[in-house]
Amino acid sequence: MLPTIAREGDTVVMIDQRKLPAEEVYVHCKTAAEVARAIKTMVIRGAPAIGVAAAMGIAVGVRKSKATGTQKVAAEFYRICELMAATRPTAVNLFWAIDRMKRAFAAAAKAGQSVDQIKDVLDREAQTIHDEDVASCRAMGAYGAEVVPAEAHILTHCNAGALATAGYGTALGVIRGAVEAGKQVSVFADETRPFLQGARLTAWELVRDGIPTTVITDNMAGALMRQGRVNFVVVGADRIAANGDTANKIGTYGVAVLAREHNIPFYVAAPLSTIDLSTPDGSRIPIEERSAKEVTHIGGAQLAPDGAAVWNPAFDVTPHHLIVGIITERGIFRPPYVESLQRAFARDTVPTS
Amino acid sequence: MLPTIAREGDTVVMIDQRKLPAEEVYVHCKTAAEVARAIKTMVIRGAPAIGVAAAMGIAVGVRKSKATGTQKVAAEFYRICELMAATRPTAVNLFWAIDRMKRAFAAAAKAGQSVDQIKDVLDREAQTIHDEDVASCRAMGAYGAEVVPAEAHILTHCNAGALATAGYGTALGVIRGAVEAGKQVSVFADETRPFLQGARLTAWELVRDGIPTTVITDNMAGALMRQGRVNFVVVGADRIAANGDTANKIGTYGVAVLAREHNIPFYVAAPLSTIDLSTPDGSRIPIEERSAKEVTHIGGAQLAPDGAAVWNPAFDVTPHHLIVGIITERGIFRPPYVESLQRAFARDTVPTS
Repeated sequence: MLPTIAREGDTVVMIDQRKLPAEEVYVHCKTAAEVARAIKTMVIRGAPAIGVAAAMGIAVGVRKSKATGTQKVAAEFYRICELMAATRPTAVNLFWAIDRMKRAFAAAAKAGQSVDQIKDVLDREAQTIHDEDVASCRAMGAYGAEVVPAEAHILTHCNAGALATAGYGTALGVIRGAVEAGKQVSVFADETRPFLQGARLTAWELVRDGIPTTVITDNMAGALMRQGRVNFVVVGADRIAANGDTANKIGTYGVAVLAREHNIPFYVAAPLSTIDLSTPDGSRIPIEERSAKEVTHIGGAQLAPDGAAVWNPAFDVTPHHLIVGIITERGIFRPPYVESLQRAFARDTVPTS
Repeated sequence: MLPTIAREGDTVVMIDQRKLPAEEVYVHCKTAAEVARAIKTMVIRGAPAIGVAAAMGIAVGVRKSKATGTQKVAAEFYRICELMAATRPTAVNLFWAIDRMKRAFAAAAKAGQSVDQIKDVLDREAQTIHDEDVASCRAMGAYGAEVVPAEAHILTHCNAGALATAGYGTALGVIRGAVEAGKQVSVFADETRPFLQGARLTAWELVRDGIPTTVITDNMAGALMRQGRVNFVVVGADRIAANGDTANKIGTYGVAVLAREHNIPFYVAAPLSTIDLSTPDGSRIPIEERSAKEVTHIGGAQLAPDGAAVWNPAFDVTPHHLIVGIITERGIFRPPYVESLQRAFARDTVPTS
């Protein structure tokens, strides 16, 4: 299992995803501010992973606080929660994880627990979020494997792998689940400009697992599909609206349109924590725009001339009608999503898969 | 006018397109072999430009030949033609230019001209190919400008500009023509991985011309169109089959599918020398595959891990049904292309535009 993120005493340790695959470097965050910066600068990325990071950052921040008395600790706690919430706007798992930490804090405070006890509660809650995420990915993998063809040529975009989660992955969890189920799987990884999560991270993960992987530039997906070389598409998600519209890494929408054009099933894999019923549709999902330099430079090389403008949205929205199914830890949900996703949160319902 | 390629005495001078926009370096080719290597290694690229380069390379090669007697010169001439033909397989302009040089050579030899006279004929033919290409681009620009919206937000892919031709450009010729016609034009340039002709070359040309230009990564085109920010797409071509199927830079097909999805007119701009009536449809166009390293590395940076395979086709084929019109120096041709392209070569026909 890849060590995406872990607690070591009072430190949050993350593999630096900006440096992969060239170097395996670990970043040690000793404060909440360092964790927030790591999320913002994409040391760690991927919707579930940044949820876990935020929770651990909050726990470490409060653990290190010298504040005395529940009220002062509460002030410190909410300040740290705001710091985490300001890191990245699109992935809803971040806000979901912060909300879980808030509920844990409020319950402990209400129960009259001591500052030390509250710190323990926060540590445990963050670790639970981490552990549940791994379990969710494994469940997603098992459900998803059922719809993967026996001889699968899978295209994926960006990295929705172990590195994007606490481990195992969402979209790559489905791929791993299919391999574990004995299916014959090969993968095409879109390189995923500008940050190259596909070439750098997805290919790195899959090569380590011995799954045959071919890297293509994003603009090759159409030609590949037209040649009949893809029969399944699965991607992750950063936020799924109540109607099934899905924000994911920029370029996902184009892949979905191409998949539809070639009659290839297009699936989204994400834990329930990525589904945001309070966002009615994709038009309400805030889309982060990042610095022009991510597009204009790679390493020391300048790719575009001075004087050219740059548009660099980190995500796009795939409308629900292009999505064949949403694979979650509670099964695969199908259109109409406005009904099936509601049911996903009713614990006694078994989804149709 | 950009100095893409020119004769200086017995040398062919080209701007090194691999080094733009960071550096403006000129490569001086003193032999046919050096010109062939420049084409192969993409010092110069773009279908019309490599046709001109091949013609000039042949002229320089024969000029430098120490062979005496028409027969020995002929052997040398045909050897050089083969050298040029082996550089790149997809762009038909290369073979078209070589054929023109062969016809010029055969006519001069048949007329009993001296070796020195034949050398002059080849020099003049190569220069004529160059000059006609500029004139073709200007005519394409004038025809194309008519179908560009008065307030145009144009997406283009790769570089079909001055740098891809003897000057002015095909797709960028249409954009320049629209600007000259007083239309309000802004351009989105797909960066065009892996070789980045859009970010490096198209943006550089357009910024020099003062045309507002925004660089996007290839995978952003879908989101851009979905937001209604593009109302015209124009690209170049490397080979147009008799039925209108068009080979162009990898990723063009995806752009065409997205344009259709969003009801945005998708035009191809190319001189008649790009139309190959002897190729019945796109399935017969040979598609060059280039080295994996173009995908896995940029400058010194390694983007993908060792152990991952790479697929790197340089071109894809856009089926004719996605193309609204083909803009040439003789007007705009419309579907059914299998009829209109035939007519394009009948000199007395005026196309409907």
